[in-house]
Amino acid sequence: GALGGLGLALGLWRRHTALAASREDEEDKELRQRFMAPPVSGLRELRRRRRELRSRMEVLIMETQAEMCRALAALDPGASFSVDTWERKEGGGGISCVLQDGEVFEKAGVNVSVVSGLLTEEAARQMRSRGKSLKAKDGKLPFCAMGVSSVIHPKNPHVPTMHFNYRYFEIEEADGTKQWWFGGGTDLTPTYLNEEDAVHFHKTLKEACDKHDLKLYPKYKKWCDDYFYIKHRGERRGIGGIFFDDVDSPSKEEVFQFVKSCAKAVVPCYIPIVKKHCHDSFTPEEKLWQQLRRGRYVEFNLVYDRGTKFGLLTPGSRIESILMSLPLTARWEYMHIPPESSKEAEILEVLRNPKDWVH
Amino acid sequence: GALGGLGLALGLWRRHTALAASREDEEDKELRQRFMAPPVSGLRELRRRRRELRSRMEVLIMETQAEMCRALAALDPGASFSVDTWERKEGGGGISCVLQDGEVFEKAGVNVSVVSGLLTEEAARQMRSRGKSLKAKDGKLPFCAMGVSSVIHPKNPHVPTMHFNYRYFEIEEADGTKQWWFGGGTDLTPTYLNEEDAVHFHKTLKEACDKHDLKLYPKYKKWCDDYFYIKHRGERRGIGGIFFDDVDSPSKEEVFQFVKSCAKAVVPCYIPIVKKHCHDSFTPEEKLWQQLRRGRYVEFNLVYDRGTKFGLLTPGSRIESILMSLPLTARWEYMHIPPESSKEAEILEVLRNPKDWVH
Repeated sequence: GALGGLGLALGLWRRHTALAASREDEEDKELRQRFMAPPVSGLRELRRRRRELRSRMEVLIMETQAEMCRALAALDPGASFSVDTWERKEGGGGISCVLQDGEVFEKAGVNVSVVSGLLTEEAARQMRSRGKSLKAKDGKLPFCAMGVSSVIHPKNPHVPTMHFNYRYFEIEEADGTKQWWFGGGTDLTPTYLNEEDAVHFHKTLKEACDKHDLKLYPKYKKWCDDYFYIKHRGERRGIGGIFFDDVDSPSKEEVFQFVKSCAKAVVPCYIPIVKKHCHDSFTPEEKLWQQLRRGRYVEFNLVYDRGTKFGLLTPGSRIESILMSLPLTARWEYMHIPPESSKEAEILEVLRNPKDWVH
Repeated sequence: GALGGLGLALGLWRRHTALAASREDEEDKELRQRFMAPPVSGLRELRRRRRELRSRMEVLIMETQAEMCRALAALDPGASFSVDTWERKEGGGGISCVLQDGEVFEKAGVNVSVVSGLLTEEAARQMRSRGKSLKAKDGKLPFCAMGVSSVIHPKNPHVPTMHFNYRYFEIEEADGTKQWWFGGGTDLTPTYLNEEDAVHFHKTLKEACDKHDLKLYPKYKKWCDDYFYIKHRGERRGIGGIFFDDVDSPSKEEVFQFVKSCAKAVVPCYIPIVKKHCHDSFTPEEKLWQQLRRGRYVEFNLVYDRGTKFGLLTPGSRIESILMSLPLTARWEYMHIPPESSKEAEILEVLRNPKDWVH
């Protein structure tokens, strides 16, 4: 992967001889080819600060974006990703990759953002309400935030929607100390329940977590079920996965390694499920039920999702990248209640009462 | 109208003789036929408290519901309204009339609710933040709220979406005094701009306002443009109309008469526009633009609309009646930007910079 490429560069780092310069050029070329676009911080800067966690995280999110986009594009050869790089005038920018109206995917977005600047009052207030003590210097809190986030809405109602997001946050306090934390998660939203898929998805996530600490999967699985709750419906958005936020222990390095395992698990979690079902036949009734579930997805994202709400309220945020998570099409029917014992009632039951898929 | 029927009953009110009783039965029958369902407070109770404003308001909202439903049904003869009466266990109830997937209308909902009980802490807090001083008795604030609200989403992209809502609120304070106020509005959301329609719509509203005070239309027209603002898009939801809230002067009777004029203007505002365009031909591209605008409608309602947010947070509220306002179908495309000087760009311009349609 690109990280290997960069790692190689880091290992062989030496004085700026002609040889090293030409090696750098080659590596730049390799990285350019491996990433979807030049990284926000620039290749030189990433290499210069190669030991800093924020550089390693930026490489990880760039790699994750590229791996996911490549895996999706391979399944939908007729379609292609549009790649937009954008800048934020307050500092930083991002890369949005979107595939729309393909054969397999209705809408697939994978977004990287690396932003920095001063925290707004509103953002600081929200963070303090989550228990952070942030001591500002003249009311100013410099921050750096980066992450990769993605929502994949397939066309076929037998292929579930998938979402993941991995992010890193740093805030500099008045005395110069840095607060930092990681957040993220991966979760699945099927239109119909397929137990085998649910088990595969959760098992892959559990294995990624278990490499680090056996307590993580059960804790973050429950957090996911709690987070993606559509209160006014009494339903979860999907059948869950993992979700965590504000994680800052045991150490920066250990949390990063855990996040890396999760990010590397995204493709093996999801792509086999897409491959398995993308040619399944389906009825107009099944497509309609998918559209109604898409409506619930919109309800969660616009009414409850912290990231979306935060984005909509943040000045200078890129609305198209935030609302990339919304499906291409959605439907709301008044009083739609699936018949008892139907396949539609089966998934609703699991959304109302989450199950444990692996033990 | 039904109010006339009730007015007759009130004028001829006399002791409970056999003659009066039989007249009452007849009038009950007449009212039942004029309304979509029996009123929440019951016909006897409405007649008993006939002089109280809350009874007159309940008759007005029931009439408005019935007039609107009848006018819509006449334009879409193949479809029919489903009528659901519902109760709220905390007090009161409502009547939801919904026509779905008709020839002319994609989704048309007209809802009446008449609820009472004790204000929740959250609701009291919200009202105080709007400048109301509410003195509670042992922390309790008995209230009564009633209103008619409606959203009409037509199929044809040349027929605009319309929304209206008229409501009355009463709160009893610790010392027994009652605070009261009216709110409401009527507004239009076209997919494409038709100036003649915009002028007709605003002119009809202005005439209703002007009967009461020449200052009302300009004030409430601006309030409407400000209220239906989708901040993250920099656009209004539609081309406006009128909107007002917390209106408690000059007197209860005068405000009621104003609200009555507005409610009576709903059908003449909108129905001629539907009739004029419901057989217009349209292209698949025009239908697609309508679907994208429906997406914006969903964004406003779920992210900003006070009534919707309040409803979703209120225990015991009927979710299906609140989310009745959402369109049957909606669409979100990444980075959809209409070409300059197109019909799509024309309406966007007006949504970004509201115009005065009547002077």
